[in-house]
Amino acid sequence: MNTPMVIRIGICGLGTVGQGVWKHLSRIRPELEARLGVKLELTRASVRDRRKKRSVTIPAGKLTTDSLAVATDPNIDIVCELIGGTTVARDVTLGALACGKVVVSANKALICKHGAEIFETARRHGGHFLFEASVAGGIPLIKALREGLVANRFPLIYGILNGTCNYILTQMEEQDAPYSAILGEAKQLGYAEADESLDVLGWDTAHKASVLTFLAHGTWVKPEQMIVEGIDRITPGDFKNASALGYGIKLLAVITRDFTTGELSVRVHPTLLPESHVVAKVSGVFNAVSVQGDVAGTTLYIGRGAGQDATASAVISDLVDAVSLLKNDRRAFITARKRPGPARPALACRLAPPEHIRGRYYLRLTVSDEPGVLAKIATALAAQHVSIASVIQSAQEPAGAASLVLTTHQSDERAIGTTLRRLSRLSCVLEKPLLLRIGDFSE
Amino acid sequence: MNTPMVIRIGICGLGTVGQGVWKHLSRIRPELEARLGVKLELTRASVRDRRKKRSVTIPAGKLTTDSLAVATDPNIDIVCELIGGTTVARDVTLGALACGKVVVSANKALICKHGAEIFETARRHGGHFLFEASVAGGIPLIKALREGLVANRFPLIYGILNGTCNYILTQMEEQDAPYSAILGEAKQLGYAEADESLDVLGWDTAHKASVLTFLAHGTWVKPEQMIVEGIDRITPGDFKNASALGYGIKLLAVITRDFTTGELSVRVHPTLLPESHVVAKVSGVFNAVSVQGDVAGTTLYIGRGAGQDATASAVISDLVDAVSLLKNDRRAFITARKRPGPARPALACRLAPPEHIRGRYYLRLTVSDEPGVLAKIATALAAQHVSIASVIQSAQEPAGAASLVLTTHQSDERAIGTTLRRLSRLSCVLEKPLLLRIGDFSE
Repeated sequence: MNTPMVIRIGICGLGTVGQGVWKHLSRIRPELEARLGVKLELTRASVRDRRKKRSVTIPAGKLTTDSLAVATDPNIDIVCELIGGTTVARDVTLGALACGKVVVSANKALICKHGAEIFETARRHGGHFLFEASVAGGIPLIKALREGLVANRFPLIYGILNGTCNYILTQMEEQDAPYSAILGEAKQLGYAEADESLDVLGWDTAHKASVLTFLAHGTWVKPEQMIVEGIDRITPGDFKNASALGYGIKLLAVITRDFTTGELSVRVHPTLLPESHVVAKVSGVFNAVSVQGDVAGTTLYIGRGAGQDATASAVISDLVDAVSLLKNDRRAFITARKRPGPARPALACRLAPPEHIRGRYYLRLTVSDEPGVLAKIATALAAQHVSIASVIQSAQEPAGAASLVLTTHQSDERAIGTTLRRLSRLSCVLEKPLLLRIGDFSE
Repeated sequence: MNTPMVIRIGICGLGTVGQGVWKHLSRIRPELEARLGVKLELTRASVRDRRKKRSVTIPAGKLTTDSLAVATDPNIDIVCELIGGTTVARDVTLGALACGKVVVSANKALICKHGAEIFETARRHGGHFLFEASVAGGIPLIKALREGLVANRFPLIYGILNGTCNYILTQMEEQDAPYSAILGEAKQLGYAEADESLDVLGWDTAHKASVLTFLAHGTWVKPEQMIVEGIDRITPGDFKNASALGYGIKLLAVITRDFTTGELSVRVHPTLLPESHVVAKVSGVFNAVSVQGDVAGTTLYIGRGAGQDATASAVISDLVDAVSLLKNDRRAFITARKRPGPARPALACRLAPPEHIRGRYYLRLTVSDEPGVLAKIATALAAQHVSIASVIQSAQEPAGAASLVLTTHQSDERAIGTTLRRLSRLSCVLEKPLLLRIGDFSE
C-alpha cells in the first residue's frame, strides 16, 4: 500500500473568508481525504496581526505576518489568496504561480485589473489559477461556464452580481423608503461597507462582469471600457413608476456578443425587468445569473453571492480541483509543465460602438412646471430619432417643479447619450436626468 | 512537437439526442480540439435501421447496427450510450466499462435500476461513468453537486425534474382547462410521449430523484421505496383553490436528510408552493432544482430539462471531462487502474419511516351534499390527530355532490395515510380523496 500523497495548503489572509475556509476545511477534511485519496494539511496562514482574536483556533507556529513567504514556501502546494486588494494580493498570486503552485482566489478586483498578467504567469511557469469564489459566491457559476456549458457560445449573459445593491433596491421597494435611509440600515446590518461606493456605483459588479466576459469570450474588458452606472440616484418614485409600467428595478451586468459581427458589449446599469421575470423576483442579498447558451438554451443560477460560508464553499471546491491538478501533474513527471491559458480562445472580438447597443429606455426628468416643457423635451428626443412610448407626469417638490417620466421605443446608446446631454442643457430641465435601461430579455 | 493524442468516440443510438450530439460535436470540434490539445474522432455510431432518414449526415462506413460492437471496439475510447431503456443499454454500458472505457450516459432509468452494478463495474475495471445529461438536461446540475458544492452536505434538495408535467400543469392553470385536454395538446406538440404514464405518474421524476440521492447521499433509493404520486388527478378547481390559498401547484421531487438521525426521505408528489416562491414561477417545459447546502446555503438552478440541444450540451460537457480523464490515465501508465466509486461515501443512512415525514396537507374530497358530512370527516381527521387549518366548500356536479377542500396543520405521512384510508371508507365520501402536499420550503 502506498502512503497517500500529502497536499499542503497555505492561506494568505485570515479575514472573514479566510477564517471560513479554515473552519469548514478543518471540519470536512477527513471526508475529503477519503474521497481524494490524499492527506490535506493546513500548513501555514498569514495574517496582518498575530494577536488578533479570531473565530478559529490556529496553532501559533502556523501563523506568520509574511504573506509572500507563504506564497513561495517550497513546502506549500496550494496558496489561497484571500487578502483582497490589488497590491500584496498581486505579489502573492504572481509569486506563487511563478513557483508553479496552484493559486485559489476570491479576488475579482485583482483578476479584473491583472488577469492577463496572472494567466500568462500561470501558463509560463506551469501554475494554475482558480477563481470560483470571485463571482457569485456560493453558486458554482465559473464551473458551469468553463465546464458544464463547454459546448456553448454565449450571446447573452446577464444578472445580479452584487448582493448589497440588490438588498438596497429590494428594501427601497418594500419599505417605500429613500436610498440614503436604506443604505444606512444596510451598513448597520453589515450588508454594506463603511465606504459603499465600490458596490453602489456599480464597480464591484463591473469587476465581476469583467471576469465573466473573460470566461465566456476569452477577452479582457476593463470597467473603464464599460457603461457603468450605479443605484445611488434611484428614488422610491422610480419604483412606483416602474411598477405602474409592469417592471421591477435591478442592478444588472449585461454581456452581449453578436457572433455574426464579433461585437461584444459589457455594461452595468440599473435595469427595468418585467415583474413576471424570474430574475425580478430575486430579492435581498441573493445573486442571479442568466446564461444564454447557443446549445443548452437559457440556464439561470441563483444563490448567495457573498458571505463567509458561501465564499468558503466556492474556495473549497477550487481546492478539490487543485488537488486533482496536482495529482495529475505529479503523475506526469514533467518539469517544464505547460497549461492551457484562458478557458476560451480569444476569437476575433471587439467592443460594440454605442450606436450598436440598442434598447428601450426609462427617463426621469425634473422639469419646471410650466406650459410648453413637454414640447421642448419631445423636440430634443425627436432630433435624435428617439421615439417616445409613454409619458407619466406628476407634480413634485419643490413647488414649481414637476417630474416627467418617459419611456422610449428602441433606440441606441449613442442617440440616448446625445439626447441626455441636450436635455441637460435645457433651462426647463432642473436636474441631471436619470436614465434606466429596460431589459427586454426573454426567459 | 508531439502529435496530439487521438480520442475516438462511439455513439450508441442515433435518435434525437444522438443526432444532436453528432451535430453539435461536428460543429465545435475544432474549438474543442484546440482547447484540449487532442484530436477528437467520431469513429462509429450504432443505429437500429441503417437506412432511416436522419438530420445529420454520417458516412455509411461509420454506421453499424451492432451497439455492443461499438461498446467493446478496442479502437474506441469513449462510448455515448444514448439508446435508452434498460436492456441493450445495460449491456452496452457494462461492456464498455469492463473494457476500461469512459461511458457517457443520459439514461436515468438505467442508472436508477442498475446504478450500483454500473459503478461497481467501472470501479473494478478502471472505467468511468459520466451522466450529466441524465438529470435536468442542459443545467450542469450533476457537476454542481459533485464538484461545485463538494464542501456541502445537503439537508434538502427539491425541484421540478420533468418538463412534460410542468408544461401540463402550467397550461392547465393558464387555460383553466382539464388535464386530459392539455395532455392531448402536449402530445400533439411533442411535449408528451404517446404513452405518457412514465412522465405524468411521476416515475421519470422518481428515476431522477434516485440519481440525485445517490450523488448527494451515496446511497441508492429505488422508486418503489419512495412516495410517488402523479399529476393525473389534478383539476382546474385545484388550481383555483390553491390560488385562493396563495399557492401554485408543481410536481416536485423532494429529498431530505436529517444529519442528526441519519434519516433520509425521497418522494415525488404534486406540491402546493407559495406563489411568491421563485420555483413556483418556473413555467412550461423548464426544470428547476433548489439545493440547500450546509455551507453554501440555498442555490437554485433553472433551465431546459430535455430536448435535443439541451441534452447534447450536457453530453458534450461529459465528453470533455472524459478527455481529461483519458489524458490523465494515459499519462499514468497504469494497467490496473482504480477509480473512486460514488461521489459521496455512503454514510450511515436509512429511510425515514412515514411518521417522521412531516408536513402540511391539502385534501380534496367529493362528498354527498347533506348535513353532518363535515362533522364525520372532521371526526376521522381528529382520530389521527390531524388538525384542520382551513375549509373551502362548494357545490359540484353531479347534483347532490359537493367538493370539500381542507388544509391541515403539521401532521405526518403515517397519520395522513391512515386518515385517507378511513375517509375512503365513509359512505358520504364519493371518490378517492385527492391529497396534495404543501411545500413549506424557505428560500
